[in-house]
Amino acid sequence: MTEKAKFAVIGGGSWATAIVKMLTMNVSQVNWYMRSVYAVEHLKLHKHNPNYLSSVEFDIKKLNLTNDINQAVKDADYVIFAIPSAFLNGELQNLTEDLQGKVIFSAIKGIVPETSMIVGEHFHKNYNIDYENIGVITGPCHAEEVALERLSYLTIACGDAAKAKIMAKNLSSYFIKTKTTDDIIGTEYAAVLKNIYSIAAGIAHGLGYGDNFQAVLMSNAIREMKRFIKQVHKMKRNINNSAYLGDLLVTGYSVFSRNRMFGNMIGKGYTVKSAQMEMSMVAEGYYAAKSAYKLNQEYKAKTPILDAVYEVLYENKEAKQSFKKLTDKLN
Amino acid sequence: MTEKAKFAVIGGGSWATAIVKMLTMNVSQVNWYMRSVYAVEHLKLHKHNPNYLSSVEFDIKKLNLTNDINQAVKDADYVIFAIPSAFLNGELQNLTEDLQGKVIFSAIKGIVPETSMIVGEHFHKNYNIDYENIGVITGPCHAEEVALERLSYLTIACGDAAKAKIMAKNLSSYFIKTKTTDDIIGTEYAAVLKNIYSIAAGIAHGLGYGDNFQAVLMSNAIREMKRFIKQVHKMKRNINNSAYLGDLLVTGYSVFSRNRMFGNMIGKGYTVKSAQMEMSMVAEGYYAAKSAYKLNQEYKAKTPILDAVYEVLYENKEAKQSFKKLTDKLN
Repeated sequence: MTEKAKFAVIGGGSWATAIVKMLTMNVSQVNWYMRSVYAVEHLKLHKHNPNYLSSVEFDIKKLNLTNDINQAVKDADYVIFAIPSAFLNGELQNLTEDLQGKVIFSAIKGIVPETSMIVGEHFHKNYNIDYENIGVITGPCHAEEVALERLSYLTIACGDAAKAKIMAKNLSSYFIKTKTTDDIIGTEYAAVLKNIYSIAAGIAHGLGYGDNFQAVLMSNAIREMKRFIKQVHKMKRNINNSAYLGDLLVTGYSVFSRNRMFGNMIGKGYTVKSAQMEMSMVAEGYYAAKSAYKLNQEYKAKTPILDAVYEVLYENKEAKQSFKKLTDKLN
Repeated sequence: MTEKAKFAVIGGGSWATAIVKMLTMNVSQVNWYMRSVYAVEHLKLHKHNPNYLSSVEFDIKKLNLTNDINQAVKDADYVIFAIPSAFLNGELQNLTEDLQGKVIFSAIKGIVPETSMIVGEHFHKNYNIDYENIGVITGPCHAEEVALERLSYLTIACGDAAKAKIMAKNLSSYFIKTKTTDDIIGTEYAAVLKNIYSIAAGIAHGLGYGDNFQAVLMSNAIREMKRFIKQVHKMKRNINNSAYLGDLLVTGYSVFSRNRMFGNMIGKGYTVKSAQMEMSMVAEGYYAAKSAYKLNQEYKAKTPILDAVYEVLYENKEAKQSFKKLTDKLN
């Protein structure tokens, strides 16, 4: 695989749209699959995604737009999945093209609900993809700021360093800086866990806790994340690198994060169900909390924040009481 | 010294006022020195500090208010300094009471400009105070949230663990949780450095960098802080504890931080001088940047953020260019 590698992006949301924008800064052709027939037609006609990052204008000649996932995957060397984790399995049901020999990148930041696995692991175990051909694209990166071409830093993880470099090179531009790592497990878990901590930040805010407490919560969250990931996959990593701490901060401190928004509603007294109905977008952290909690029954890391979020979301516990208890466990 | 220790608070600003509020939750008498004759008279008459946290009502019977620093210090076992570092030397000129045998706590978060030392070191070297009798009170803690009785966590450092515990106990209440440590050097440097990084966050914001970049900046800042403090005083510490990372976050992400505000003005094009004139309060980070930079000529830690702030504040470099250069050094 050379630098003329061919890329497919699977997904029509804001992060998928941002990734296509980044790629089109460097390559002449991107295969872009999205489910919505309307969105594809609109894009072809108006050069903008009608639903997400609609300010971004695309050079349509560079896009192979399709509603058929197989057509997008067929001649691609690198397939980037950027859809909510809850929809991944459904999309993969339609895939008849062989993934062998292709490099699968996850830009999903969630746990596959059906298998309780992170995306890389899911492809490795269920599609027999070698870890050399599995990668992760991670932030800290709000898609909205990519649309605005504001300077952002991405971390590209892959089992094969050369492939990480190719992906990094093709995402880089005057407003995107990239670095590479081989920590595919750790970076993907970090991206998953940060959504849970972002729900916690939202709950705390909704309950009336202030900035002093948020700083303590985030400082405890990064220590908890370190403990959890260490149990899952022990290796030398600096948890304060941008892919871990940076990604936690951009989500935990963002008032636009859907996870934080979801938590905030619960802190303010919405039931979990009504908060979900109010949200038009999926809060990845909701599913992640369940999977991470179950997983941790085996790993047994000390995870007071995850535990508190889990009992509020899944055990019908009052957020106020659960967080009161949590405050005694933080320091 | 027993639990009936006597406390003096030196300072009339918001942090001093917050500390007096915390102490009066636990002790029957606090000696409180402030320079302003007017503020003392107003407090006696109206039970509120007229200038800072004026919503806080004090039980005047508990306060020994004075404009004479010697009277406040005289019968105190614990003396807490909570004034801008630039004013410390001036206040100490008036002090004739002997500090020997007393425990000196710094709540200053700045470097003494005349000696380029953190406060603990200043007292140790110039007043011959043993490190067993030197302590630090550190956040993450905006004084404004103490006024509102919002849950906050303090870290109390002292060379003598028993004294740290006494101070911690006397500051604790239903809205203040405390922990203790013996890292008096590291916690005080963290409190100093975070103000410099907060200026950096402000400059970046003023220049138009977004949330993605701020997360990268903070993630680099905590790694830089770790390297710097390790050079100054190597010991086992978790830089992600609340006293280090938490304190950085509460300041770096606060739009109310005077350091961030100061940086923001510079990013927006104010000269350093005009930004200073616009600010009614002292931005500790301004002095800290110079002292820390000079100190680091000796320690030689890799400090790209400190260096960028220093050259903008003291070498007349354009913020835009300095930060452009900085973005290439972050990851």
